[in-house]
Amino acid sequence: MVFEHPKVKELLDKTRVLWALHHAESVLSWDSETYMPRKGVADRSLAMAELAALQQKLLLRDDVVKLVDDLSNNNDLNDYEKGVVRVLSRSIRIMKALPPELVMEMAKTTEEARPYWREAKVKNKFEVFEPYLDKIIELSRKAAEYIGYDEHPYDAALDYYEEGLRKRSVEDMFNYIEPRIRRILDKILSNGLYPSTHELEDVKYDVSAMEKVNKEVLQRLGYPFDRGRLDVSAHPFTIGIGLDDVRITTRYEGKDFKRTLYGTIHEFGHALYDLQIDKSFRMTPIARGASLGIHESQSRFWENIIGRSKPFTEAIYPLLSSHLSFISRYSPEDIYMYVNTVKPSLIRVEADEVTYNLHILLRFKLEVRMMEGDYRARDVAEAWNEEMEELLGVRPKTYSEGVLQDIHWSMGSIGYFPTYTIGNLVSAQIYHNIKKDIPNFHDLINELDFEEVRNYLREKIHKWGATYPPEELLKKSFGEPLNPKYFIDYLEEKYLS
Amino acid sequence: MVFEHPKVKELLDKTRVLWALHHAESVLSWDSETYMPRKGVADRSLAMAELAALQQKLLLRDDVVKLVDDLSNNNDLNDYEKGVVRVLSRSIRIMKALPPELVMEMAKTTEEARPYWREAKVKNKFEVFEPYLDKIIELSRKAAEYIGYDEHPYDAALDYYEEGLRKRSVEDMFNYIEPRIRRILDKILSNGLYPSTHELEDVKYDVSAMEKVNKEVLQRLGYPFDRGRLDVSAHPFTIGIGLDDVRITTRYEGKDFKRTLYGTIHEFGHALYDLQIDKSFRMTPIARGASLGIHESQSRFWENIIGRSKPFTEAIYPLLSSHLSFISRYSPEDIYMYVNTVKPSLIRVEADEVTYNLHILLRFKLEVRMMEGDYRARDVAEAWNEEMEELLGVRPKTYSEGVLQDIHWSMGSIGYFPTYTIGNLVSAQIYHNIKKDIPNFHDLINELDFEEVRNYLREKIHKWGATYPPEELLKKSFGEPLNPKYFIDYLEEKYLS
Repeated sequence: MVFEHPKVKELLDKTRVLWALHHAESVLSWDSETYMPRKGVADRSLAMAELAALQQKLLLRDDVVKLVDDLSNNNDLNDYEKGVVRVLSRSIRIMKALPPELVMEMAKTTEEARPYWREAKVKNKFEVFEPYLDKIIELSRKAAEYIGYDEHPYDAALDYYEEGLRKRSVEDMFNYIEPRIRRILDKILSNGLYPSTHELEDVKYDVSAMEKVNKEVLQRLGYPFDRGRLDVSAHPFTIGIGLDDVRITTRYEGKDFKRTLYGTIHEFGHALYDLQIDKSFRMTPIARGASLGIHESQSRFWENIIGRSKPFTEAIYPLLSSHLSFISRYSPEDIYMYVNTVKPSLIRVEADEVTYNLHILLRFKLEVRMMEGDYRARDVAEAWNEEMEELLGVRPKTYSEGVLQDIHWSMGSIGYFPTYTIGNLVSAQIYHNIKKDIPNFHDLINELDFEEVRNYLREKIHKWGATYPPEELLKKSFGEPLNPKYFIDYLEEKYLS
Repeated sequence: MVFEHPKVKELLDKTRVLWALHHAESVLSWDSETYMPRKGVADRSLAMAELAALQQKLLLRDDVVKLVDDLSNNNDLNDYEKGVVRVLSRSIRIMKALPPELVMEMAKTTEEARPYWREAKVKNKFEVFEPYLDKIIELSRKAAEYIGYDEHPYDAALDYYEEGLRKRSVEDMFNYIEPRIRRILDKILSNGLYPSTHELEDVKYDVSAMEKVNKEVLQRLGYPFDRGRLDVSAHPFTIGIGLDDVRITTRYEGKDFKRTLYGTIHEFGHALYDLQIDKSFRMTPIARGASLGIHESQSRFWENIIGRSKPFTEAIYPLLSSHLSFISRYSPEDIYMYVNTVKPSLIRVEADEVTYNLHILLRFKLEVRMMEGDYRARDVAEAWNEEMEELLGVRPKTYSEGVLQDIHWSMGSIGYFPTYTIGNLVSAQIYHNIKKDIPNFHDLINELDFEEVRNYLREKIHKWGATYPPEELLKKSFGEPLNPKYFIDYLEEKYLS
């Protein structure tokens, strides 16, 4: 048995209702993004706010807090039990700090904001979203003050999404990778090693044919459709409703098929994580990923390290051509180049592996400012284009392809973006290790035989759930904490050799 | 303002979280029946059980119970406020009586049972569902004992679904209608007034064309797709997730298009009720129908009184033929006869208006026995065929077309079926009144102009929500309580004149 300590069992019994509420919230969120009728949003946002406040109340019940406090100093616990106590204790610390009115207001504001963000993006009208972003910035700042921080209010925002992450360490990370990325990028561009565009970007596809491609690719990767679904939403996501119900979404723009295909593979990586968590964690607080950064490492590992590799594009070529008639006009090598164009561009989710983290750096810089002083939504919108030009050398012509492109801020997620860069760095660290541990890694990809890869990820990462905090998990599984060197190694191996 | 009394406002504030939980449960139920991946059921059933127990706990909080008790004897309340207190007080009485373990067990058992019922039905294997039905019967009997009753344990089951309903009054109802239905049925059959089958029953349709028909018919009836959805489920249903999010489902068997069409119209009737509840009841306990019987009167009114009338079948003929090519081989009169065949048959949901209530009588008889003595699932399965033969003169060859045909028992709903007959009787009572109040009722149907009809139903029934208990609502709106005479009048007018 994983959970043996009687006090931990008691704690799990008492907090199972929180799991149930989280389960319900997940279904509600999924529904809001996929099937909810347009006018359902008013009730939905009020319900989500009530449920958020209820969760806070139930988490902060005296008997729960006392049990967690007692267990925090208990040395008899095994690692799983310690994980449960750590995760709950972290939530209690944050939720105790936040006034219930603020929690409800945040839940309500973000539920309301999402459809306005969507409308603003569709209509290219920043002012539709602006008052909500103002409110979200204000609430986030307030939350940081309530939660507290060592050096900078942004520390509180970062730690909320990635346990232990600080503004200073994100700066260190970017200070290491930014100049190296620029050097690599310059070489690629000046030597024309990879194309910057590809004519397949303009080729239209039939949506129902593309649906089949996505489903078949998911099947080949090992996505179990009796434990998940593939739906359509404006902003693709993965949601773990239960350990046997992990759903993903994609979107179909009607042309440039790599967007939906690689979006789907990306979400598969997230889903596989949740699907391979140890089943005995069911209904406990550690039945989730170690952190957002580690979660993103899984999606990026499948999307980029596997999905954009030559053995993979070669291997799925027949599958692509069986559904998409235009594929036959291109060679497998064309497909590889098409999914690996390198070019400083406007849209984060379409950015190549080389420039992607510069998009995160932009958001990081803006978020730091949002969390300090009197920086408002309007300032963010104006700074966006300037920073974009400085970092990537391109300037958006519309809000939709600029400051409005991402859903995150509309969901109140300030401090979330840096976890994407952590994900990229960790995915390369895993690549460094898996090549050593599975010497025929590339051959397996070329055979679309992923069982060993899935098992490797399960043993090293997935099965542990949130037993360990992210840095500890990395040390335990790979012998060292996050090391950005491997990401630069990976880019050099792939793009310069 | 509808709610003015400060104590009622306080009560509504305190119980808003129950509304939020109900909202969440509704989405979860909808999801379970429509999109949930197969293996998600284990977690879902545990979550539903936790949420049921949590609702009970929050409803029975001392401060809530005390407020409701105080307000129950308060004469200063307006009708809406009285309604709130009545509905909550009823729930408190029932939930106080039921041990939390029983509530959780019922929630868990029924969530688990549903997929097994479905499997049993598909595979025609009663034994797959049998242990669950045994458990559900046992739990229902226990619940009746805890809740208490005047004369018969079935009274408790009936009252749970239809406030004030008793075994004795259901018997009176059937004693009145059964012989009269038989007399009418005999005349129809012996004089061949309506056909007993129609060749359209065997005609296949294209599912996507039929989807368009259903959607267009819903649009004509006035279903607002920005406040609802049409999905597919094994057993069609309507679910009010919020006053602006009322979803319906249908199913496509691939032939005999009246099944899906009239199923859809039926669910529209349910949906319109919830969609026309007074918006100021939002998030309160009276933002729901007065009772299941009154709810069913709305679905049957649209399905039968309007939908199966000659003016309606005539009016939708062009719409049908624009999507279904085979329609052109038939006349509007053919369509009318096809949707009005009369024949003692096996399946309740396909039964005609004349024989339908005999299907309910069968279930009523069996349910009475389930609630008394040591009647088990196996006994129900055996008695089904005997009773079917006696009541309708037909005998099922399989469990699937017999005892396994309905979802209700798998959901723990014993005592629910009689509300269908109440619905039929009330729909005819409304018909009697609407003909007087809107003299050109049939002309409006023939013009597919339903605004006045929707407004009539809104003013007489819908807008009141659960302000009044069912019998009181009928008296208030139509000057008398439920009167089964109008149903017999309706059948005679339609089938014998």
